[in-house]
Amino acid sequence: MRDMVEIKDLGQHVGETVTVAGWVETTRSHGKVAFVVLRDGTGLAQCVLVKKQVSEATWEAHGLATQESAVSVTGEVRADDRAPGGYELGVTEMTVTGQAAEYPIQPKEHGVDFLLDHRHLWLRSSMQRSGLRVRAEVEQAIHDFFYGRGFVRIDTPILTGSIGEHAGTLFSTDYFGEKAYLAQTGQLYVEAACPAFRKVYCFGPTFRAEKSKTRRHLTEFWMVEPEVAFADSEDNMRLQEDFVSYLVERALERCPEELEILERDTSRIEHVKPPFPRISYTDAVTRLQAKGSEIQWGDDLGAGDEAVLTEDYDLPVFVANYPKEAKAFYMKENPEDTRTVLCDDLLAPEGYGEIIGGSQREDDLDRLLERIREEQLPEEAYSWYLDLRRYGTFPHSGFGLGVERTVAWITGRHHIRELIPFPRLMNRLFP
Amino acid sequence: MRDMVEIKDLGQHVGETVTVAGWVETTRSHGKVAFVVLRDGTGLAQCVLVKKQVSEATWEAHGLATQESAVSVTGEVRADDRAPGGYELGVTEMTVTGQAAEYPIQPKEHGVDFLLDHRHLWLRSSMQRSGLRVRAEVEQAIHDFFYGRGFVRIDTPILTGSIGEHAGTLFSTDYFGEKAYLAQTGQLYVEAACPAFRKVYCFGPTFRAEKSKTRRHLTEFWMVEPEVAFADSEDNMRLQEDFVSYLVERALERCPEELEILERDTSRIEHVKPPFPRISYTDAVTRLQAKGSEIQWGDDLGAGDEAVLTEDYDLPVFVANYPKEAKAFYMKENPEDTRTVLCDDLLAPEGYGEIIGGSQREDDLDRLLERIREEQLPEEAYSWYLDLRRYGTFPHSGFGLGVERTVAWITGRHHIRELIPFPRLMNRLFP
Repeated sequence: MRDMVEIKDLGQHVGETVTVAGWVETTRSHGKVAFVVLRDGTGLAQCVLVKKQVSEATWEAHGLATQESAVSVTGEVRADDRAPGGYELGVTEMTVTGQAAEYPIQPKEHGVDFLLDHRHLWLRSSMQRSGLRVRAEVEQAIHDFFYGRGFVRIDTPILTGSIGEHAGTLFSTDYFGEKAYLAQTGQLYVEAACPAFRKVYCFGPTFRAEKSKTRRHLTEFWMVEPEVAFADSEDNMRLQEDFVSYLVERALERCPEELEILERDTSRIEHVKPPFPRISYTDAVTRLQAKGSEIQWGDDLGAGDEAVLTEDYDLPVFVANYPKEAKAFYMKENPEDTRTVLCDDLLAPEGYGEIIGGSQREDDLDRLLERIREEQLPEEAYSWYLDLRRYGTFPHSGFGLGVERTVAWITGRHHIRELIPFPRLMNRLFP
Repeated sequence: MRDMVEIKDLGQHVGETVTVAGWVETTRSHGKVAFVVLRDGTGLAQCVLVKKQVSEATWEAHGLATQESAVSVTGEVRADDRAPGGYELGVTEMTVTGQAAEYPIQPKEHGVDFLLDHRHLWLRSSMQRSGLRVRAEVEQAIHDFFYGRGFVRIDTPILTGSIGEHAGTLFSTDYFGEKAYLAQTGQLYVEAACPAFRKVYCFGPTFRAEKSKTRRHLTEFWMVEPEVAFADSEDNMRLQEDFVSYLVERALERCPEELEILERDTSRIEHVKPPFPRISYTDAVTRLQAKGSEIQWGDDLGAGDEAVLTEDYDLPVFVANYPKEAKAFYMKENPEDTRTVLCDDLLAPEGYGEIIGGSQREDDLDRLLERIREEQLPEEAYSWYLDLRRYGTFPHSGFGLGVERTVAWITGRHHIRELIPFPRLMNRLFP
């Protein structure tokens, strides 16, 4: 099937006769002239059939070309500013190769459950295509950013005997008689790879068995987690702002059409460049209290608090150095205020909330052991992690960025479930 | 910590005084002069301490710098061809920031269980670093190849209610009261994305609960699975040979030092370029029988058969069009011999065996339904997959390449468990 041309390349074939294949978006007919808008996955093209210029079989094919039917069309490429994509095809031959039954998704309002039940077809809609194409661009940008800076990719295991953060929210499986958990983070493993490669990252799916139904939660989502040896919390935040700015820039530069289809007001993200504002958790609490919140020092910030904090900014905001109790055991104690740890959350503007959680890691063996015992975590399971503090412990920092939340912010979409091809929610495992 | 220099960049600082930090590989002392070989994750550097030129504290630091201790060293960069990496550091100051306890891994033979138990430390060894760096390069090459050809990355779910291939070899978990399986393939999902993007691929971990202990099996491994609309089995094989050749070329071009450390005879892979030889399954059986094998037409090829078949070639070999019964239900019937399906396995030379399985997919709704019933698969779970044949069915093909097997072949390593950072084997879930 090598003689086929992709619609995105039609401009290279003006005046030539080519064959394209794809799916029918719409058809209309004026008796003697008929139009088919064809989508081939690389673009849209209008195909024009003039009854007296085509064979009977081709004219009949037009009538059989129901919405989403797969068709093959041969015709002459003509430049036409009015046509979607800028080119149209003067059809000489058309064949319906896969006629579609009545298509369930119509240009009307469908309920969200209906659309999610038909996710395998909903993917073909232009808003969904656009969102997922931005996702793919952001993911390539993630790899390019770290590869370009000399990071070594480390794939961390999903099946794990030890436990990351919140034991209550783990999926588990029988593993040849043992119990295995689905990893919530690759962080502990990338820490182990630092003495081999200095700068490393992992990128893959992570799992949370949380009974949460908000628009910001998925049970399975993708996370990128870089880790850098000899980097402190300040270095860590600089890396984060460089990284996030790069992802936004790539999407703006390479997905302008998709962002337009998504009706994203790109002026809201065009100025996303380092440095991002930084406030301490302690200042954040004071500020929230002044705005009428009942938050007390020591409480974690809720989604509502995050929204209030970010409303004063048009850039992502770092909130740094949370109370120890609000954060995970592996974060390094802040020497300037031992009630807190050296960490940051990066909050996206426009109400998108936390897209990054990062920290300097506790590199003191005794203090780390103490924290593991305080949190009543299974010490034995962490023996290998503790080894990293026994054999040449070193300052290091890292963070995790959630892909779906980040892409939701960049594209301006409300629900993160639209920014993953097949979302997994508390009540959804299908398709 | 921004003033630190990475060892790989020492050449840019000859004559300057710089600070590097890393881990001690070896030390030796001649009473008045001492040497420390430092690894910082980007390279190795020899540090030279002259007793009468350094402070007492620095001289003592040398004595405390046990193997794998984390140290910080300041000194003048000197070019020296005899030094590892080509540069050495004339030390003015040295501090042990993280002294290591007696390091478990010594330059002697350790048993494989011991090494796998200490995988979190074994990663630091030069062979392991080299293998994993080639893996990271191959992974970036995977993304670059498909991105460059206009494929859209589609992340497919790990948690799934429907079932891919071999129901007996699936891990399962409780999913809020339902049963979920860990995906063995993303293929069915990337097929659904074809009508949206034409050319797509997924890349992520996959799972096999197989009770297999061979050097070629992992329970968790990484696979890349491209899928192309309007591509037939021939197009599919051409894509595969282009792809594999590109991965080999990237590794040769960008990892020459690593391949040298691994003692890879690169002359065995330098000529890996399209086209690769193709034989049919039927011819393969005839050939094996002529060589004395007892294989009968209809049997699947075992690892031993694969090794015999590939010994005549110094390129990967396609074996095409296997018997229907030996392959998965979704493969398209071969119109020229309906006992067989339009598929291929790509066998790597030097005994590495199957690195790719690919096929044209069955796009005929009735024939696909028939195959699902023949295999007694749960029809209801595949309803969404069957929809792809109801709504604009189209010819399409794709394949899956296993990352660890491919990297084992490229690097010439015997066991694939060394080519994944934290291998998961039937009896291994730790660290």
